[in-house]
Amino acid sequence: METITASQAFFWEFFGTSILLLLGNGVCAAINLRTSIARNAGWLGIALGWGLAVYAGASIADASGGHLNPAVTLALAIKGSLSWGLVPAYIAGQLIGAFVGAILAWAAFKQLFDANAYDDAGTPSGANSATTGCFFTAPAHPNNFWNAVTEFIATFVLLSFILFGPSGGELGPLTYFGVAFIVVAIGLSLGSPTGYAINPVRDLGPRLAYAFILPIKGKGDANWAYAWVPIVAPMLAAAAVGMLAVAVG
Amino acid sequence: METITASQAFFWEFFGTSILLLLGNGVCAAINLRTSIARNAGWLGIALGWGLAVYAGASIADASGGHLNPAVTLALAIKGSLSWGLVPAYIAGQLIGAFVGAILAWAAFKQLFDANAYDDAGTPSGANSATTGCFFTAPAHPNNFWNAVTEFIATFVLLSFILFGPSGGELGPLTYFGVAFIVVAIGLSLGSPTGYAINPVRDLGPRLAYAFILPIKGKGDANWAYAWVPIVAPMLAAAAVGMLAVAVG
Amino acid sequence: METITASQAFFWEFFGTSILLLLGNGVCAAINLRTSIARNAGWLGIALGWGLAVYAGASIADASGGHLNPAVTLALAIKGSLSWGLVPAYIAGQLIGAFVGAILAWAAFKQLFDANAYDDAGTPSGANSATTGCFFTAPAHPNNFWNAVTEFIATFVLLSFILFGPSGGELGPLTYFGVAFIVVAIGLSLGSPTGYAINPVRDLGPRLAYAFILPIKGKGDANWAYAWVPIVAPMLAAAAVGMLAVAVG
Amino acid sequence: METITASQAFFWEFFGTSILLLLGNGVCAAINLRTSIARNAGWLGIALGWGLAVYAGASIADASGGHLNPAVTLALAIKGSLSWGLVPAYIAGQLIGAFVGAILAWAAFKQLFDANAYDDAGTPSGANSATTGCFFTAPAHPNNFWNAVTEFIATFVLLSFILFGPSGGELGPLTYFGVAFIVVAIGLSLGSPTGYAINPVRDLGPRLAYAFILPIKGKGDANWAYAWVPIVAPMLAAAAVGMLAVAVG
Repeated sequence: METITASQAFFWEFFGTSILLLLGNGVCAAINLRTSIARNAGWLGIALGWGLAVYAGASIADASGGHLNPAVTLALAIKGSLSWGLVPAYIAGQLIGAFVGAILAWAAFKQLFDANAYDDAGTPSGANSATTGCFFTAPAHPNNFWNAVTEFIATFVLLSFILFGPSGGELGPLTYFGVAFIVVAIGLSLGSPTGYAINPVRDLGPRLAYAFILPIKGKGDANWAYAWVPIVAPMLAAAAVGMLAVAVG
Repeated sequence: METITASQAFFWEFFGTSILLLLGNGVCAAINLRTSIARNAGWLGIALGWGLAVYAGASIADASGGHLNPAVTLALAIKGSLSWGLVPAYIAGQLIGAFVGAILAWAAFKQLFDANAYDDAGTPSGANSATTGCFFTAPAHPNNFWNAVTEFIATFVLLSFILFGPSGGELGPLTYFGVAFIVVAIGLSLGSPTGYAINPVRDLGPRLAYAFILPIKGKGDANWAYAWVPIVAPMLAAAAVGMLAVAVG
Repeated sequence: METITASQAFFWEFFGTSILLLLGNGVCAAINLRTSIARNAGWLGIALGWGLAVYAGASIADASGGHLNPAVTLALAIKGSLSWGLVPAYIAGQLIGAFVGAILAWAAFKQLFDANAYDDAGTPSGANSATTGCFFTAPAHPNNFWNAVTEFIATFVLLSFILFGPSGGELGPLTYFGVAFIVVAIGLSLGSPTGYAINPVRDLGPRLAYAFILPIKGKGDANWAYAWVPIVAPMLAAAAVGMLAVAVG
Repeated sequence: METITASQAFFWEFFGTSILLLLGNGVCAAINLRTSIARNAGWLGIALGWGLAVYAGASIADASGGHLNPAVTLALAIKGSLSWGLVPAYIAGQLIGAFVGAILAWAAFKQLFDANAYDDAGTPSGANSATTGCFFTAPAHPNNFWNAVTEFIATFVLLSFILFGPSGGELGPLTYFGVAFIVVAIGLSLGSPTGYAINPVRDLGPRLAYAFILPIKGKGDANWAYAWVPIVAPMLAAAAVGMLAVAVG
């Protein structure tokens, strides 16, 4: 993994993370938008969809290890499995990829976004507010401290699997299946209090695209007051799990 | 894979694609038809059913690499993983297999098709119109340009996994699990705008069988005006991903 | 596989098939019985439950190859992968195991069967009639010819996977995952017309236990007029797939 | 596996079992609590969530074999796959881990527990009573004998897979996937009569945390009269399967 160049790391993390957000924001649109035939998939659809989105993106980014998440990159760097010099290229590819993936998801659902405008009051499942729930996370009960606790715990589970699971940080084909299982697990078990970002760019990239680029009618508020929680809490979990890995090393 | 003959390629692609459409059209019938006990499986049933249909068909066609899809065949030929001389045999087997698979699905559900006639107005999930939704795709909002965008994006994801995922085009047992996961992912995340053909023969074969062969009472319109979209868009995606694979070589 | 003795074959097929029917009849009880909290799992629960029941039973019967099904045993014998001399021991173990498994499922749900008596008219999902649907299959539309067509097609898919899939009849750990996927696929796609026995003993064993042993109040009719369909059609499919395997060599 | 020290065994079993209960109690909270967006996942969510919780915990505890369950530990010790001297460390780590995991699940859902108080009468799925169903099991029909029968049978299936399945007690990456499948199978098929503890500490650890530690408003009764069933029945099954493994050797 250390023989990859920074530009290769950037390219593959960009590619994989754009697929992750295309599929992840896509499944939220599929469950939320008024004219989507997939609405009845409900929360199981959300949880399976996001798990499989990680599977798809991580597999496609196999050449760079399929991190797709600055928290994964940070934890592996602290553990010593990734050169610190590559960290900026990884995170830059992830953030730009997340931004582009959100735009692709909008394009795939453009007709449904157009038909949805001003009509999604009372959506029965998967929605937090208007069309924002298709792109970025929001807590069930706003409380930055306890929301951060939830995001910290959920990310801690994800990173514990990656660093302590049978593959020990060597991400190969079986590990991608495993990561998909873990992300579905986290979605089902810990997802509902905060929408389980568990990844800074998964939340920030689409939030930026929604706030500044996407031509969606009747857009909701981008809720910047909450935006730091799904950035800071996962990175703190990455520091904690990375240091634990060094300690038990 | 290059040591296979054209007639072997035709046979196995025919066999595998007939299984794909038998199961794929079958799950649509299971969710759509009025007297099916499986109706409550909804869109999750559709998405899981199609993913597992690809798993079944691709595994059975292991001897020819389990393409089942002209877009997969084209992308692998452009990349250089398949001899161009075999491409016609692959695609012929796929198209005829898809046609036969649709007929088998009708036979398996004949009693339910007979009981369904003229009664499926108001089906709550998975239906687009009458019995057509059991066989071929239709968009939620007809607009050939944007529908083609959705089909292009969805096929791009599928082919990126096959060409850039950990198996790098070498389709073995683990890859069949992976392809199943990807097809479920695409169905959950990107399936609702157009019904995710992502495969020219998946749509054309059953459309031909429905329009010209199947003795279903009260048949709907075969909607030929849309039929080119799920052919052209996936093949353009195949060209794009194939050339990208050559470029990143 | 040829080094196993007849008594070992009997024991492991008995053990594995009893687990298959315990879990398979169990999931039907879980979805059908009035006081079961699992009722809302619906047809997805049925399809996943039976697929995983096969996974469990086949894995536990790994020592005998995990057939659990006379159709699998017959097809492998025709292909030449199993000695004909072992076939009686395999099938005897399977039939007795299926009978015992149904009794175990009743024991696990005894309290719910007691609470259910005479009350399950109008069950919303997964039920065919009274408590019979917990044990043996029944068609959505009784028609022995077309019901046999459906059972033949569905069993043909199962056996094609086992004989032509990547493992080529060598049933190892990955194949058990694959068989689970295939059984879920068949359940979702082809299960609703007849309840997908696709296995003579899966239907006959529990039908015998229900008709002659189980002390269930308000029992329904054992419907012996249909009982030959899920025996004969799967065995014909086994003959067809076995001969096809010989033909394609 | 025999080269692990008692303190390592304690640490990894503590870690893995805390993840198991965090996710397992988490999915119960996600389905039960009034303001959870995941409520519509129903019993499928429960069954998938617990299966994946075992996958996560067992993978993270790979270094100690990922038992997470005194019944697994006892069965492997009887079979001779684990030194008896390590059994106390395994079980101590499991019990304390289960206790801590329940507290973590409460923390992740604190806002939802606060909003739920006194309001969950009439919850439509996954609830047994008040908030107790988020933490420990309860039978659908209280009857200690028959409830113990159900728990014995369900645990027997789990342990038969671990001891007789293809990995034969050597728990590696593929086995963790397999155990996840088996736990989902048991949940779907045998879970509804008693809530399928199939693990003494899965029930006792959270029951202790709920009864004595957690500051939940309007707590229900800890139902100590039932508490011995999910301890004794699984351990009896462990003895039975362990002795069977010795017998078939």
